Amino acid sequence: MNTRQALVPLLAIVAIAVQAGAQAREQKFGPLTLQSQGSLFVGGEVKAAPPSTAAGPGAAPGEITVNQMYVQYQIPPKADRHAPVVMVHGCCLSSKTWETTPDGRMGWNEYFVRKGRSVYLADQVSRARSGFDPSVISAVKSGAQPPSTLPNIIAASHQVAWTVFRFGPSYPKAFEDGQFPVEAAAELYKQMIPDLNALLPNPNPTWTNMAALAKQLKGAVLMGHSESGFFPQQAALIDPSGIRAMISIEQPCPELTAAQVTALARIPTLVMFGDHLGDVPPGIVNWKTTFEGCNAYVDKVKAAGGDITMMSLPAMGIKGNSHMLMQDKNNLQVADLILGWLDTHVDKKK
Amino acid sequence: MNTRQALVPLLAIVAIAVQAGAQAREQKFGPLTLQSQGSLFVGGEVKAAPPSTAAGPGAAPGEITVNQMYVQYQIPPKADRHAPVVMVHGCCLSSKTWETTPDGRMGWNEYFVRKGRSVYLADQVSRARSGFDPSVISAVKSGAQPPSTLPNIIAASHQVAWTVFRFGPSYPKAFEDGQFPVEAAAELYKQMIPDLNALLPNPNPTWTNMAALAKQLKGAVLMGHSESGFFPQQAALIDPSGIRAMISIEQPCPELTAAQVTALARIPTLVMFGDHLGDVPPGIVNWKTTFEGCNAYVDKVKAAGGDITMMSLPAMGIKGNSHMLMQDKNNLQVADLILGWLDTHVDKKK
Repeated sequence: MNTRQALVPLLAIVAIAVQAGAQAREQKFGPLTLQSQGSLFVGGEVKAAPPSTAAGPGAAPGEITVNQMYVQYQIPPKADRHAPVVMVHGCCLSSKTWETTPDGRMGWNEYFVRKGRSVYLADQVSRARSGFDPSVISAVKSGAQPPSTLPNIIAASHQVAWTVFRFGPSYPKAFEDGQFPVEAAAELYKQMIPDLNALLPNPNPTWTNMAALAKQLKGAVLMGHSESGFFPQQAALIDPSGIRAMISIEQPCPELTAAQVTALARIPTLVMFGDHLGDVPPGIVNWKTTFEGCNAYVDKVKAAGGDITMMSLPAMGIKGNSHMLMQDKNNLQVADLILGWLDTHVDKKK
Repeated sequence: MNTRQALVPLLAIVAIAVQAGAQAREQKFGPLTLQSQGSLFVGGEVKAAPPSTAAGPGAAPGEITVNQMYVQYQIPPKADRHAPVVMVHGCCLSSKTWETTPDGRMGWNEYFVRKGRSVYLADQVSRARSGFDPSVISAVKSGAQPPSTLPNIIAASHQVAWTVFRFGPSYPKAFEDGQFPVEAAAELYKQMIPDLNALLPNPNPTWTNMAALAKQLKGAVLMGHSESGFFPQQAALIDPSGIRAMISIEQPCPELTAAQVTALARIPTLVMFGDHLGDVPPGIVNWKTTFEGCNAYVDKVKAAGGDITMMSLPAMGIKGNSHMLMQDKNNLQVADLILGWLDTHVDKKK
């Protein structure tokens, strides 16, 4: 039986699981009241439109807007007791990361709102509703530029995601104590969309826009995951003035200068990693050395006097969490750890 | 002063307008209560992943999922009194179309929910959070296919949008009675993202997925706009079983066979057009002939015994509406016309 044949019964199971999840959610939580909600853009630059090869609306010359960041928000009643939380997704994903889980349970976006926090979901620049700059692709099509100038699109396969996201040691074998709802993996694969970050200038406009959003909100917690896990720090190195705290989930911690470490040590920071870091093949990502690199970063920030916490979930007795821990079966338990940390390290200091 | 120089003060004005809009909205409407909310995917097919040129997560062989449609929903209390409404955006846009307007007022998504309707916002397949199939772009980059096989990306420029969306007779001149908030046009331009529909197979998977979603919801109203304005009908021609009504806003009405007209005449239909159809240069879109084509379609459906309504807003005494009428200053007045039509033609028949 090939994957395609296996998919039909799997989808039926997922459909039932999604319905059951939705029912359980409503029973457990009841209606949700919002003070307000909406969406907006941060940043954006105007540039010449590519000479289009299409007969459509792009055919005439003019200007387009690029590098803007789409943000969707929900504000609960009495939200001013807590700093708002900005959530930014990782590689090959969108803000769907934080919403309804693949098996139909509540995502962190709604859970944080129910816990009194305003939540801002940002699609990375060049992804999803933020759009991307089409100029290079149009220039290659018209012959103005060679094919080699096309971006390296990252399109993670199901098989690569299985081990990199640590659902199991090899596709399609799952960890016995794994927390990811592998029966709904096909629903996760639908969230995985092409990553065009190779198109972006340096510094990445998402970093600049995250810093600007935090400032616009007069103080916000920036949270990143995986590809974007260190984006809160990159944003803080551009403009720390609006950043109340940084939450970095399962990401590489790059080498920094002493001055950079000193600057970042001024902002309360939480770093979080899940389980089975050494139990998947160290191919595209080596989770063990990534984790070690972040422990070294944590030590440096501590040495600089910073308020930084490393939460290694298995070291805290919470076993089996995957890379997609905001979608794991115990996702709300993990969220509670973050909410508790925010209470202690950020909101009580307000 | 060039456009770039003009943008800075304009953005400051927009920021103030957005804040003022948010305040006015909260004063007028008060908190919002939802029975539930979430997001899901409809459809999706598994295919071989492109041999990646990237060193990232796509480097190993495997499979990817394409042609899935991302849908975000909100369900108000007692929603079962009305059929849910599925809103699908037009060319070079995303579901942002229906959300907070460029000048910060409430969008149709929230207004319909406040009027007791469940709302489902779909990103078209190959756009935004639905992702797109990266295979062709990767194949051209690697040299496996010639540049001519790249898709015609439609990237509408500010200048093209101005007249095609009927903000005024020529960029940047606005109609005196225009309803679009032109002072916030820069915020609309941020919503305009590259359109990769040229990548899609035929039939367009968005049509199939819209029909499937309506069925999954056990009956839904499908609403399309512009590029997607006739998608409700295309969905109905694939599978009408879940489609309770079709709302087509400012779109071309293609030639159909008598059998197709008969099939579509079984479903209540609303067609809506705004103002100034003959007052912009008939370049990429000729609004006058488009409107005439839809009047002919309405006549054919009526002749086949169908319940179809043409709402020409200026003929009803509502002047100045642009192509983006869900974002116009009188957008809630226009929404009320649709809600009233749904009450009379759909929900009372339930």
